[in-house]
Amino acid sequence: MTGFVSFVSSGPGDPDLLTLRALNRLQVADAVLFDDLSSGPILAHARKGADLIGVGKRAGRPSPKQDHVSRLLVDYARSGQKVVRLKSGDAGIFGRLEEETTALTQAGIGYEIIPGVTSATAAAAAAGIPLTRRLAARRVQFVTGADVTGALPQDVNMAALADPQATTIVYMGKSTFSLLAQRLISHGLSPDTPALLAHAVSTPQQLIERFTIQTLAAHLEGATNASPALILYGPLAPEGGDLE
Amino acid sequence: MTGFVSFVSSGPGDPDLLTLRALNRLQVADAVLFDDLSSGPILAHARKGADLIGVGKRAGRPSPKQDHVSRLLVDYARSGQKVVRLKSGDAGIFGRLEEETTALTQAGIGYEIIPGVTSATAAAAAAGIPLTRRLAARRVQFVTGADVTGALPQDVNMAALADPQATTIVYMGKSTFSLLAQRLISHGLSPDTPALLAHAVSTPQQLIERFTIQTLAAHLEGATNASPALILYGPLAPEGGDLE
Repeated sequence: MTGFVSFVSSGPGDPDLLTLRALNRLQVADAVLFDDLSSGPILAHARKGADLIGVGKRAGRPSPKQDHVSRLLVDYARSGQKVVRLKSGDAGIFGRLEEETTALTQAGIGYEIIPGVTSATAAAAAAGIPLTRRLAARRVQFVTGADVTGALPQDVNMAALADPQATTIVYMGKSTFSLLAQRLISHGLSPDTPALLAHAVSTPQQLIERFTIQTLAAHLEGATNASPALILYGPLAPEGGDLE
Repeated sequence: MTGFVSFVSSGPGDPDLLTLRALNRLQVADAVLFDDLSSGPILAHARKGADLIGVGKRAGRPSPKQDHVSRLLVDYARSGQKVVRLKSGDAGIFGRLEEETTALTQAGIGYEIIPGVTSATAAAAAAGIPLTRRLAARRVQFVTGADVTGALPQDVNMAALADPQATTIVYMGKSTFSLLAQRLISHGLSPDTPALLAHAVSTPQQLIERFTIQTLAAHLEGATNASPALILYGPLAPEGGDLE
């Protein structure tokens, strides 16, 4: 009997932001393959006796090759197990999901994807603001600030990113934001555009700081992506009650 | 004693896609103000005896004025109640959240925002595909296809929307997609760009159909937004196991 793989979105970190379906899949899984970023309190929901296998990358450490993770998924499923592949945030957003689903499809193994709370919406919620605004921000976009080498991707669409009427969320963008901000400003975006730096959203270490794109660029000069953080910028609403 | 308002994201419709925190807030609320779109099985989680107040718009019917909803929120909270304001999808994405949080702030009433699963990630998950792809789609954007009059917003950024390297999700866009597709193609996006039309994601009526932007435009000629649907287009991954 062949097993089955559930790609489970863990949300931004707080186990209370798991969905009911994600919780169910964790509770019944025989094996849980997790990234370091989504470990800890969320894994506490796995049933006693389940295999818990860390396969994630951690900034600054070598990570298992992607094809190694795919092979593990196939091997666990082929042995007839119910496998959960836990991914932080929403599995479909910057989760390297396609490499793993393709490997399963090629091996003839069924899978499902359980959507979850992506870090961007959790960061906005923690700051007490919406991502869209009725007239001021009718477009919201998520981009990655780093390619596989850690550099700002060459092919970023500056007309899209420098649009003053969009809210932009940059994932993994701390180390490249100084360069990005310089390019945004040279493409006409005001240096006074509001920006938020959100660390460890929804965890006890959560910290949300308000800047402009110019002051944030100065703050992040020389920064690394060692501790993950999100950057939000655009016509952000005035902060809500919960901003710390 | 003044009450408190929890803006609770209901997710795309399936109650199993509520977060644990959303479920908790529903279970303890004295009053739940809900939109029609998020009613039914989700409201079944509210405690017996809670006031359930429908305030939502339904396509084709007049909706309560936004300031009426804000006034109701303030009144319920001032009477000392624990109020849940249930919003479909993620409350911060096309949820008209700011009007209501502003009213609460002005009235000196505290609130929190519980983030949730937005319909876009749920639609992609249901189709078995990611929204981002490592090299092909490093940007994902959510836009609304209709302004308050129902027309395609005048100020859409065509350079952003016609980018062949972004995945775009159009909310409330059925009635304007024929026009949008024509503009996308005239801005250089290939007519053969893959598109998905996703109806009633995560509900028993879910239907996901695959098109190109050109064939979808023809399919939606003369359509209305009476039944809500999402449109996804861009360099979408080949469909996964669950596409119906």
